[in-house]
Amino acid sequence: MTSIASPRERLLRAAAELFYAEGAATVGVERLCKAAGVSKRSMYQLFATKDEVIAESLREYGPATVAGYFPDPAADMPPRERILHVFARLEERSGTGPFHGCPFVNTAVELHDPTHAAALVALSFKQRLESYFQQHATALGASDPQFLAAQLTMLFDGASVRAVMRAEPLGGLALRAAGQLLDAAT
Amino acid sequence: MTSIASPRERLLRAAAELFYAEGAATVGVERLCKAAGVSKRSMYQLFATKDEVIAESLREYGPATVAGYFPDPAADMPPRERILHVFARLEERSGTGPFHGCPFVNTAVELHDPTHAAALVALSFKQRLESYFQQHATALGASDPQFLAAQLTMLFDGASVRAVMRAEPLGGLALRAAGQLLDAAT
Repeated sequence: MTSIASPRERLLRAAAELFYAEGAATVGVERLCKAAGVSKRSMYQLFATKDEVIAESLREYGPATVAGYFPDPAADMPPRERILHVFARLEERSGTGPFHGCPFVNTAVELHDPTHAAALVALSFKQRLESYFQQHATALGASDPQFLAAQLTMLFDGASVRAVMRAEPLGGLALRAAGQLLDAAT
Repeated sequence: MTSIASPRERLLRAAAELFYAEGAATVGVERLCKAAGVSKRSMYQLFATKDEVIAESLREYGPATVAGYFPDPAADMPPRERILHVFARLEERSGTGPFHGCPFVNTAVELHDPTHAAALVALSFKQRLESYFQQHATALGASDPQFLAAQLTMLFDGASVRAVMRAEPLGGLALRAAGQLLDAAT
């Protein structure tokens, strides 16, 4: 079966890719429409503003981003391994060409407006990561699962930023730091 | 004495303020020149490109940003307190209107290009923070001062990002997490 992507789908995919690789503030509507093969007129029939495209593309592609860091829910894996899995994926991606850090952090930083619809979408995905950590921190018997989840989330974001700024792999640093947080909490 | 700021000084100050508050990718040359009270022609006589303005404003105002997190070098303060001081300043600033996270992280994220002159300036200031942590981690007798310094830097960046995304104060979280890292390392 050949599936032809609709103009809306093409726009959201091009937005997710370009905004992640080059920045939501940097990529203009002209360039976005050209990459999507959609006229500006058609874009504005589908979305009132570029801001709406930013929010909607994050909403559409955010779940796949998050899922890319999580193990198979059906896998037979203890809670500690489930938490460390996230950092192992980050280690793998850091320092590679397509890695530009966390798209949710990037969007929030770039927009400079926590009330922006896309910033709220970004926050909701970041909270999904923290909930995941908290769930497994609880299963692990951590003395303060909420605090441990916040520590792990800050480590994840700080490590992502480090890999972006240095443009080099983390070299095991994030995984080691996560392991230490887990040791200290249990 | 009345000091009249030069066009160069006005441009760099306006750039540092606007790029921090609204984003280096978002604020255009028109707006920058207007805020600085400098014609575009004068700007391009002083700087070849907007990219040069971004790098130069960070170079000029970066030291004050870093210094704002450090205690008086002459103060009688043990190394542990010197490290925690940085997180206490971050706690104070988080959730306030003028706080938009770390300007060095923001610039690196916004530019999406680790070879950009401003991204290299940003990285050098971030490394200054990490060197500060490492110096005091060594004085503290940490078992692995380099690792502790990296952990503290990642915590600082992750906590900044958290405050920006949630648009609320850290509420002691960063300070508590830093204290735990210090406890675990000594």
